[in-house]
Amino acid sequence: MIKTKAYAAQTAASLLAPYEFQRRAPGADDVQIEILYCGVCHSDLHTARGEWKGTQFPCVPGHEIVGRVVAVGSQVDKFKVGDLAGVGCMVDSCGHCHSCAEGEEQYCENGFTGTYNGPMFGGENTYGGYSQTIVVKQSFVLHIRHAEADLASVAPLLCAGITTWSPLRHWGAGPGKQVGIVGLGGLGHMGVKLAHAMGTHVTLFTTSPGKVEDGKRLGADRVCVSTDPAQMAALANHFDLIINTVAAPHNLDAFLGLLKLDGTMTLVGAPAEPHPSPGVFNLIFKRRSLAGSLIGGIRETQEMLDFCAEHGIVSDIEMIPMDYINTAYERMLKNDVKYRFVIDLATLG
Amino acid sequence: MIKTKAYAAQTAASLLAPYEFQRRAPGADDVQIEILYCGVCHSDLHTARGEWKGTQFPCVPGHEIVGRVVAVGSQVDKFKVGDLAGVGCMVDSCGHCHSCAEGEEQYCENGFTGTYNGPMFGGENTYGGYSQTIVVKQSFVLHIRHAEADLASVAPLLCAGITTWSPLRHWGAGPGKQVGIVGLGGLGHMGVKLAHAMGTHVTLFTTSPGKVEDGKRLGADRVCVSTDPAQMAALANHFDLIINTVAAPHNLDAFLGLLKLDGTMTLVGAPAEPHPSPGVFNLIFKRRSLAGSLIGGIRETQEMLDFCAEHGIVSDIEMIPMDYINTAYERMLKNDVKYRFVIDLATLG
Repeated sequence: MIKTKAYAAQTAASLLAPYEFQRRAPGADDVQIEILYCGVCHSDLHTARGEWKGTQFPCVPGHEIVGRVVAVGSQVDKFKVGDLAGVGCMVDSCGHCHSCAEGEEQYCENGFTGTYNGPMFGGENTYGGYSQTIVVKQSFVLHIRHAEADLASVAPLLCAGITTWSPLRHWGAGPGKQVGIVGLGGLGHMGVKLAHAMGTHVTLFTTSPGKVEDGKRLGADRVCVSTDPAQMAALANHFDLIINTVAAPHNLDAFLGLLKLDGTMTLVGAPAEPHPSPGVFNLIFKRRSLAGSLIGGIRETQEMLDFCAEHGIVSDIEMIPMDYINTAYERMLKNDVKYRFVIDLATLG
Repeated sequence: MIKTKAYAAQTAASLLAPYEFQRRAPGADDVQIEILYCGVCHSDLHTARGEWKGTQFPCVPGHEIVGRVVAVGSQVDKFKVGDLAGVGCMVDSCGHCHSCAEGEEQYCENGFTGTYNGPMFGGENTYGGYSQTIVVKQSFVLHIRHAEADLASVAPLLCAGITTWSPLRHWGAGPGKQVGIVGLGGLGHMGVKLAHAMGTHVTLFTTSPGKVEDGKRLGADRVCVSTDPAQMAALANHFDLIINTVAAPHNLDAFLGLLKLDGTMTLVGAPAEPHPSPGVFNLIFKRRSLAGSLIGGIRETQEMLDFCAEHGIVSDIEMIPMDYINTAYERMLKNDVKYRFVIDLATLG
């Protein structure tokens, strides 16, 4: 067993604080990674505070993990000691259902095992990346091909990146398509960068006029201030695809009306309270779809990482020490981060 | 001009009553049809009673029209006097937008002209099929290839038939697919018949245990009483496509949860009040879609009619005289019809 320092919430009402637990020693098919950086996702906060049902405590969040391989099991052939490696939102799945067979482990019919709080999805309890080291079976470990200097900024690709990449790919973003990204936070800023790099025309929707310039810098061809009715009306029936990253309940009709015939709006944020009910006429009169999408499979996560390495894409981050995490959560709630906090695990020592 | 007897609502609060108006004389591209039968659609009732916004009075409803061609304009080449013919929900569209160019006039970007109450969709006012005769440009007139004896039962295909046919085709119903039809009314009973004839496995959802046998007679492979939690739970993650014909507000999540990965539920009924808001997790965790679909284009309406003629498919109807229409509306509100009223226009004389 491997003694591991970490930060954990002991109850839904607790601040995160130092915690120590045991990882399993690497089995034949396992990779042990020294965690160097871990991104801070809104899901971490929701889970640590028990805002979604089913948090098991103590809870060690973190599923945007990058680091260096420090040990491998006897049957590991994908990684060797010294490799850079990443771990995203999943560490296991059944491996034999239809979804797993298709490489879409995130939709595992028997429930994948989350990198932390595994039982929420049906598996054993697990501890995430706010910790020194992690042991994961090799098929759930990703290769990092970015320069080592970029490593901290790569971490958010493991959740924010793949969560926007997967629906962009699934619904065919690319040249000739009009894509909207709603919300400029951790997910939204990755959505803009990725959609732009795919060669699609990108419109960012933000409620903040102060984010217009930043949206353009990140790659948006157009930034629409969604609180301005005239700007919104000018884009009616315009989009093939809208990726909506906003988890707070809001009026979906305002965006559904911007889809052209057969367009789709895909929700990737999960609000604690439901959105106001969307209007049926908005769906019927243009055969529009309202859909959802969950992270992405391991194969496409590797594709996304390789694409980002090739195109020089990383996240915009603010690096923080481990003991800043509770302050970081409060700032996240105020959207006061551009655009992702990343923990430097060297500060956990 | 052609003096035409009809039934009309003079205000949203009026019963329908005899009315007389003038049709245009057929122009070079027009077909004049003596109306023999007209189906009674829920939209007729909603419009006549002003329950959707924008009814222009007097209102002559009716968009499931079948009859015989009695005159044709000089440039008409699709029809000749004596032909059986049908008219559905549209009598015109712009003809040059992207949707019209694709043969999807129902999604005309400039607004199609409805067969009655045209202004609701952007066109001139129009009077529908609760009348003796109608004059329509030939490109919006359908050929009827059923036996003449079936003519009354063909009428509901022009709306109830195409409204379920179009989404079944668009989302790929057929052999090997699991399709659900929610609601056994005018639309639902056509959905069951059409999906069955397409060779797909059909499950009918009804709240009425008394409709189980009738559902099977109509072609359902399985009938699920949707108020029985055990029957519903047994079908979780089961369907590729669900066509939801129920216009009354209801819990969409109960059906969204029955879709498999990448499944779609398509709404074809438009409630006056919104449905309770569907759960985002239900969409996200299986990449499901909630969509809408509006009638169908002229080309696919003809395809549907020809398919039905070939497969011997008609609607189950109850024939009524014109002066029964107000009683028929009250019975429709109680779902007391199996499964469509059709007016015998000979009774209007």
